[in-house]
Amino acid sequence: MSTIVVEVMPKAELLDPAGKAVAGALARLGKSEFTAVRIGKRFELTVDGEVTDAVLAEAQKLADDMLSNSVIEDVVRVYVAETTAAGSAS
Amino acid sequence: MSTIVVEVMPKAELLDPAGKAVAGALARLGKSEFTAVRIGKRFELTVDGEVTDAVLAEAQKLADDMLSNSVIEDVVRVYVAETTAAGSAS
Repeated sequence: MSTIVVEVMPKAELLDPAGKAVAGALARLGKSEFTAVRIGKRFELTVDGEVTDAVLAEAQKLADDMLSNSVIEDVVRVYVAETTAAGSAS
Repeated sequence: MSTIVVEVMPKAELLDPAGKAVAGALARLGKSEFTAVRIGKRFELTVDGEVTDAVLAEAQKLADDMLSNSVIEDVVRVYVAETTAAGSAS
């Protein structure tokens, strides 16, 4: 069993209010070393068996079409990971 | 300017209804190669200047205390990335 990870972040030119709120909270707590925070998504797609090039291409297509909203989000990366937090979700 | 990435996923023993919904949609679309989907979060913390060991340790602590809910989520990874989608969020 393999896992494909898809990373999606809000576009750089977008405001991301949730990230701004976290950054504001950090500033109030005196953590001034962190100047900005942005919050995106991380999908784990579980694949039974091997991840072939075709499956990875399919995952890339899904990432662009379904898992991200291309108006406001960018797909940062699609890659094959070791099995992590996925698994018991069948 | 550097970026620290924090990856947070729902715990494996948790249901993750949003991920289940995506997995169901994929199944209905005939994408049977993907057997499960889990949806977590990806934080980008922007750091002015170098990421020292102290800053990385601080980020790890923040990840455990503030950016994740340890009852339902696991911090998968905290690492230093090249500057990506963050940046113009100052």
